[in-house]
Amino acid sequence: MKYLRYGEPGRERPGVLDDAGVIRDLGGRCDDLAGDALDPARLMALTGADLASLPAVDAGVRLGPCVAATRQFIGIGLNYADHAAETGMPIPQEPIVFNKAPGCMAGPNDAIPVPPGAAKVDWEVELALVIGRRAWQVEEADALGHLAGYCICNDVSERAWQLEGTGQWLKGKSAPGFGPLGPWLVTPDEVPDPLSLAMTLEVNGETMQSGSTATMIFSPAYLVSYLSRFMVLEPGDVITTGTPPGVGMARGRFLRPGDRVRARVAGLGEQVNEVT
Amino acid sequence: MKYLRYGEPGRERPGVLDDAGVIRDLGGRCDDLAGDALDPARLMALTGADLASLPAVDAGVRLGPCVAATRQFIGIGLNYADHAAETGMPIPQEPIVFNKAPGCMAGPNDAIPVPPGAAKVDWEVELALVIGRRAWQVEEADALGHLAGYCICNDVSERAWQLEGTGQWLKGKSAPGFGPLGPWLVTPDEVPDPLSLAMTLEVNGETMQSGSTATMIFSPAYLVSYLSRFMVLEPGDVITTGTPPGVGMARGRFLRPGDRVRARVAGLGEQVNEVT
Repeated sequence: MKYLRYGEPGRERPGVLDDAGVIRDLGGRCDDLAGDALDPARLMALTGADLASLPAVDAGVRLGPCVAATRQFIGIGLNYADHAAETGMPIPQEPIVFNKAPGCMAGPNDAIPVPPGAAKVDWEVELALVIGRRAWQVEEADALGHLAGYCICNDVSERAWQLEGTGQWLKGKSAPGFGPLGPWLVTPDEVPDPLSLAMTLEVNGETMQSGSTATMIFSPAYLVSYLSRFMVLEPGDVITTGTPPGVGMARGRFLRPGDRVRARVAGLGEQVNEVT
Repeated sequence: MKYLRYGEPGRERPGVLDDAGVIRDLGGRCDDLAGDALDPARLMALTGADLASLPAVDAGVRLGPCVAATRQFIGIGLNYADHAAETGMPIPQEPIVFNKAPGCMAGPNDAIPVPPGAAKVDWEVELALVIGRRAWQVEEADALGHLAGYCICNDVSERAWQLEGTGQWLKGKSAPGFGPLGPWLVTPDEVPDPLSLAMTLEVNGETMQSGSTATMIFSPAYLVSYLSRFMVLEPGDVITTGTPPGVGMARGRFLRPGDRVRARVAGLGEQVNEVT
């Protein structure tokens, strides 16, 4: 199933994509894609249902981030062997964990504003995990059972704020619009092998990133288990799992107003964002 | 005004302390101490009101964390000159920012569980700031106008998880119960000088920390302004501002089940927690 949220920012309604690609309104089934509504069993309950009875939604509607009421938006740094090589950093021995402000989440096609004072805004196409069921000290073998699903995240970053001051990466990962998420929350049954997904990112039609989750160092199951050693993961929490090579920092090219960014992960759809 | 939340975990109700120290129920005035209810003007609206008309609550009731629905729980590292000296680290040139999982918040007298696998659980008595009004790129002179108020936070930390792996401090700051908050959310009119508050922490009656916010390096106003350069601060966000000297790590003494921790900040009440 492909779940989504549509409507004006802050007033999104839950929806689902039917087999014909038509958005169907889910407002009669749940208030939002948040909390208990993200339980894997509840998300799977619609499988095989006749969605045609649900109201159809105009295809041109704005999409919001595909999950609501997120409290933890966690990123994993340098989690692709080929990206770690590009930055000149050693391959991490354990996951590098950082936070993004949950308020930076945006819709998959929303503008990415360059914030005042920013000079080094960069892109990172990533596979994101959405937690659907509380996880505390879970084994790796059980970890994927705690997922609501997968989605695309562009882990937008301001490199000077992230790396050139003291303190931690949060500062460069959190400005408004720095977390386009979606278009869809795709349930795990539709992503049988999350470690073989092609992913690309283009800026103004030029391919900047072209990689695959196959070069990921720490797998989704490992990451959920690892994080749950230290903190409770709650429904709606998002873990974005790192980026393949080709970021702007390695190219000496950062985003400017007017740039058009397109991010794709196989099976999860695409995002198109204008930089403003 | 001293606001609080009382009742069973996850089912707390809002309350306020009257001049006689009696808890009065605020459930008729707001759903919870969250979101818009934290707006400074709304919190001040009760000043001078006759609270005796509100239902009195049994003094023995459990208190919850004094703010609800927190999405960002941000800590500041090494923000006391005398604590930085104790750790052997240089005084930071700009704030060291890290996250705690918001789910680690607990009531001011709740147990602090030693999580499985933890060996170096440590204490940190701190002055915490609660955001009451959205803040994005605000000037230092305006920053305190965005506060709902102040409270005590014990920034409980597992030092091996925080410092001995790769990645950022989040991992050692986030286990369940690692964020006792309260007892009260104290409005800024009752804290005329947040930079002259005595603070102490005892373990089993022995004073471990004895300091003052006077040795704080980056002030509350500076911190709110600084953080708002990088991310939107939202009502309910909590910033815990660092600890004075005397932490366990510097003493080679960590918390064990059965220990009793008492934390005080002048004017903000006290917390008493049993380690389990």
